[in-house]
Amino acid sequence: MKRMLLLLVPLCLCHSAFAADDLTSRANKLFKPIPTKAPPLKGNPATAAKLELGKKLFFDPRLSSSQLISCNTCHNVGLGGADLQETSTGHGWQKGPRNSPTVFNAVFDAAQFWDGRAKDLQTQAKGPVQAAVEMNSNPELVVKTLKSIPGYAPLFKAAFPRAADPIGFDNMAKAIEVFEATLLTPDSPFDRFLKGDAAALSAREKRGLRIFMDKGCAPCHAGTNVGGADYYPFGVREAPTTEIRPAGDTGRFMVTNTESDRYVFKAPSLRNVAVTQPYFHSGKVWKLRDAVTVMGSAQLGVKLKDGEVEDTVAFLKALTGKQPRLSYPLLPGSSDETPHPQLK
Amino acid sequence: MKRMLLLLVPLCLCHSAFAADDLTSRANKLFKPIPTKAPPLKGNPATAAKLELGKKLFFDPRLSSSQLISCNTCHNVGLGGADLQETSTGHGWQKGPRNSPTVFNAVFDAAQFWDGRAKDLQTQAKGPVQAAVEMNSNPELVVKTLKSIPGYAPLFKAAFPRAADPIGFDNMAKAIEVFEATLLTPDSPFDRFLKGDAAALSAREKRGLRIFMDKGCAPCHAGTNVGGADYYPFGVREAPTTEIRPAGDTGRFMVTNTESDRYVFKAPSLRNVAVTQPYFHSGKVWKLRDAVTVMGSAQLGVKLKDGEVEDTVAFLKALTGKQPRLSYPLLPGSSDETPHPQLK
Repeated sequence: MKRMLLLLVPLCLCHSAFAADDLTSRANKLFKPIPTKAPPLKGNPATAAKLELGKKLFFDPRLSSSQLISCNTCHNVGLGGADLQETSTGHGWQKGPRNSPTVFNAVFDAAQFWDGRAKDLQTQAKGPVQAAVEMNSNPELVVKTLKSIPGYAPLFKAAFPRAADPIGFDNMAKAIEVFEATLLTPDSPFDRFLKGDAAALSAREKRGLRIFMDKGCAPCHAGTNVGGADYYPFGVREAPTTEIRPAGDTGRFMVTNTESDRYVFKAPSLRNVAVTQPYFHSGKVWKLRDAVTVMGSAQLGVKLKDGEVEDTVAFLKALTGKQPRLSYPLLPGSSDETPHPQLK
Repeated sequence: MKRMLLLLVPLCLCHSAFAADDLTSRANKLFKPIPTKAPPLKGNPATAAKLELGKKLFFDPRLSSSQLISCNTCHNVGLGGADLQETSTGHGWQKGPRNSPTVFNAVFDAAQFWDGRAKDLQTQAKGPVQAAVEMNSNPELVVKTLKSIPGYAPLFKAAFPRAADPIGFDNMAKAIEVFEATLLTPDSPFDRFLKGDAAALSAREKRGLRIFMDKGCAPCHAGTNVGGADYYPFGVREAPTTEIRPAGDTGRFMVTNTESDRYVFKAPSLRNVAVTQPYFHSGKVWKLRDAVTVMGSAQLGVKLKDGEVEDTVAFLKALTGKQPRLSYPLLPGSSDETPHPQLK
């Protein structure tokens, strides 16, 4: 009996090794690890000067008319690049319409915002700055403010050396894009698994990964960002409750005015999903296991068993990567010419 | 003639050197440089674990009921430790009653708040967390929130190893105090001058320093913080306008209920004053030269000449020290048990 068991052990190990190889190779056909370096940006080559400027701008609340709200307010780099709010709170304590997506790895999304209305991060960056419910400013006020802060002049000049008038709204957005493109979270357990470390995922996490691929999550959530690549109706098989999918927010329909785009949203990246609750564009679901259950019924038309939900959640937690380590930037001081905060 | 001039040069240099020595020694009788290290805290010995915890808490918006406002919101470490607002904007976009003082070097103030109602930084830290117009939380909610965040348990345990129940409101404040005590801005031009580098101040800055001492600013603004040591009526010689000194805010009178404390405030530290506009408890004066003029008339009963104001401003600008360089802390993630943000 003992001898038989001893004989079985290597066989089991082999089988397990083959199974892991099989899982690794299946996963590598669908997903890609987060790179450790920012990708090249179309028409906006990164430089150290742009990066330094973009970082200061990202943290500078003077881009908002109240001078209280910075990009970092809703995309807090200490909190997974998001804000832990159902939907973001902005100027005048107004509630924004949608949940703030994490800025981390956002550069790998095919387009920005839940409805993809901004084609890249520099286009996106101009949105919240001007949105009345967010930072409530406008290009004229932003440029006037930035020009009034003496310390920004040399930074813009260094970042845009060939520009006749370097301080501008577009250049602000370009610098922010360069900075945001560096906010990556590589080296999650899943990334290490993809790169060949079969032990990087636990047995439960591997079961979760299988479920994720076998049940049909991966067609919408694949690639580098495990999502973020395309648009899908929220409620492919079964409409979610109006609490979770409010009737008034029709998603891409509001961008394209095309009937088939009603309640269509970008499948969000699931990178760092375990630390960026609450979930969905409405932010109405707080627990990851509830979000998984909703996805099962709404998108796949299946009622996932408790064990399947737990395994999937375990896998999703393995998508939390190394969070960016940043120094807090010192912002150049205001001058007597700097517009005063406008709180109204 | 040439020979006479040549003879005069060394005499002038000698005179100038004596004058600088004289100025240095006069200044050293009144002022002290900002140390490079945090001072010991009464009853709250600093440890690396407390510092790490305190830093995370300082940046954690989950200390507010909305989970949007952190200590750093009004004491922005990238903006001189203050917020560039007349008076701070808090929960529900409410306007607070007074201008947010910088947290930098605040540990050297004799007491905290404009009216000194908190004897130290740990007492102070509990105020804004609970103030309805600031972070709008309460000790129960704060402790419940902190206990729901798994990553805080080992940090509190390490910071308070002998406590039976380390996560508490008092310990939160103690850790924040330890962190805030490290937010120092040493090595300003004035500090280098005090330490013997006569060339650290320009001729104009030295003239400003003389005016500062000769005209009577220094009796209220002296010591390490060039202020922050005691309380004085705002309007010793002449009441400021009610715009600058609103009638409803009677300062220490509201703390002591003593008639002689009406419109009495702590003389604020002038450290980093050039980067922490606007000025006075009301935040109604934006330009440093205007603040100097108001001080001349209100406190000294003199109308300072334009040149004197400019020289004084030049000296005050030399009080801007090296701003603290910090890494942005990664905050431990919320859990399913973490209370949700309360925006109402």
